[in-house]
Amino acid sequence: MHPMLTANKSEPLTSKMTSKKVVELFYDVVSAYSWLSFEVMCRYRNVWNIDLKLRPAFLGGIMQGSGNKPPVLVPNKFMYMSKDLRRLSGYFGVPLQFPSDAFEVLFNKGSLSAMRFVAAIQEREKGGDQQVEKVSRELWRRIWSEDKDITEPKSLSEAGRKAGLSDNEIEEALVLSTSKEIKDKLKSTTQFALDNGAFGFPMLVCHVDGKPEMFFGSDRFELMAHCIGEKWVGPQPNTSARL
Amino acid sequence: MHPMLTANKSEPLTSKMTSKKVVELFYDVVSAYSWLSFEVMCRYRNVWNIDLKLRPAFLGGIMQGSGNKPPVLVPNKFMYMSKDLRRLSGYFGVPLQFPSDAFEVLFNKGSLSAMRFVAAIQEREKGGDQQVEKVSRELWRRIWSEDKDITEPKSLSEAGRKAGLSDNEIEEALVLSTSKEIKDKLKSTTQFALDNGAFGFPMLVCHVDGKPEMFFGSDRFELMAHCIGEKWVGPQPNTSARL
Repeated sequence: MHPMLTANKSEPLTSKMTSKKVVELFYDVVSAYSWLSFEVMCRYRNVWNIDLKLRPAFLGGIMQGSGNKPPVLVPNKFMYMSKDLRRLSGYFGVPLQFPSDAFEVLFNKGSLSAMRFVAAIQEREKGGDQQVEKVSRELWRRIWSEDKDITEPKSLSEAGRKAGLSDNEIEEALVLSTSKEIKDKLKSTTQFALDNGAFGFPMLVCHVDGKPEMFFGSDRFELMAHCIGEKWVGPQPNTSARL
Repeated sequence: MHPMLTANKSEPLTSKMTSKKVVELFYDVVSAYSWLSFEVMCRYRNVWNIDLKLRPAFLGGIMQGSGNKPPVLVPNKFMYMSKDLRRLSGYFGVPLQFPSDAFEVLFNKGSLSAMRFVAAIQEREKGGDQQVEKVSRELWRRIWSEDKDITEPKSLSEAGRKAGLSDNEIEEALVLSTSKEIKDKLKSTTQFALDNGAFGFPMLVCHVDGKPEMFFGSDRFELMAHCIGEKWVGPQPNTSARL
């Protein structure tokens, strides 16, 4: 069962120990706009009164399940997206670079093994998200900044090491990532996102006053802040937090 | 020939009489997000150092020419869009309401005669945009707020009257709107937008330092402000400007 469904029984709106508003971020490291949202939310976690919950999921399953088409299939959209990401990269302070063979990397190679690896790490952390955050960031850095592979076990290990995991932790996460348990976990988080209206990533779900409010993309932070009663001061609220 | 193509010969970056930055807004009144952009840009015209140029065009031609699909064809996207527009309506202070029979109104009836009417009014104004602005707003109000028709001559006349045009002006614009000249003008503005990378509306093109910068949608104002060296202070910079 999806963690929020279980959690909802005892703590529907706010996290258990505090009065913080819960914000769930559904993402996949294959998505550049997800990286922007991820970094912004990690920064605002220390600025807004929120409890950020990371929800690694599988974008391929979202596109298939919702019947949506990736933007790169419309040439003008693809050209715009590349311009848009270049501008946003500078403005957000996130070092985005298109992979040299974008179509092969984003569509043929994809992110299934990478997201299973992230799901395995989350399973091992049991509630904590520190390793998940660091490993996700290193995977994004590989695919969306350094033009490196994220499909081979060796690639996942390298990301894990850069994130500060021990060889032992990495090995166990790699083994766990191919288990039925983790495959099912990634599937159920993806299905949960679909059931809550996802048609792409990032998707942010804010739990305020008993009502989940869903926001798609990395361009609704100002509106989201307005809805949850916080203040948006741009994508770099603390300029020392640059990557 | 498209007005900016002609204008480019003598005034490539700034408007003739001032040092204002030229911002072109390509829009169609069938698009709710275009209404949001339109109102925001009309407000910021008095806040930023810009010369706003209205570019009424035909969204149907953009979708066909770019191979893009309307968001309503993906059910989760359509549900999100209706939620998103409701939230944005309040935050932007623009009274958006979905038409009661959205599919019929937006896809079958469409906006071709309405946009030809707007193009005819712009042709008659010869450079000024005051009537174009008012008539566009009244057409948006009809389709996206009051659930009224925008396809019949009677409907266009009513919008014209609410915008303050005389019966004579309306009659002349209606006649002109069915001429080959105006049909070609709307086509060429639409083709110009496609050639400049459009895959939907609204599209904003900022001319700064000799380089056109294109922004799609009603969610890039903050980034756009950053790019043109102005300051974004939210969608209602002057709260007295509410509709």
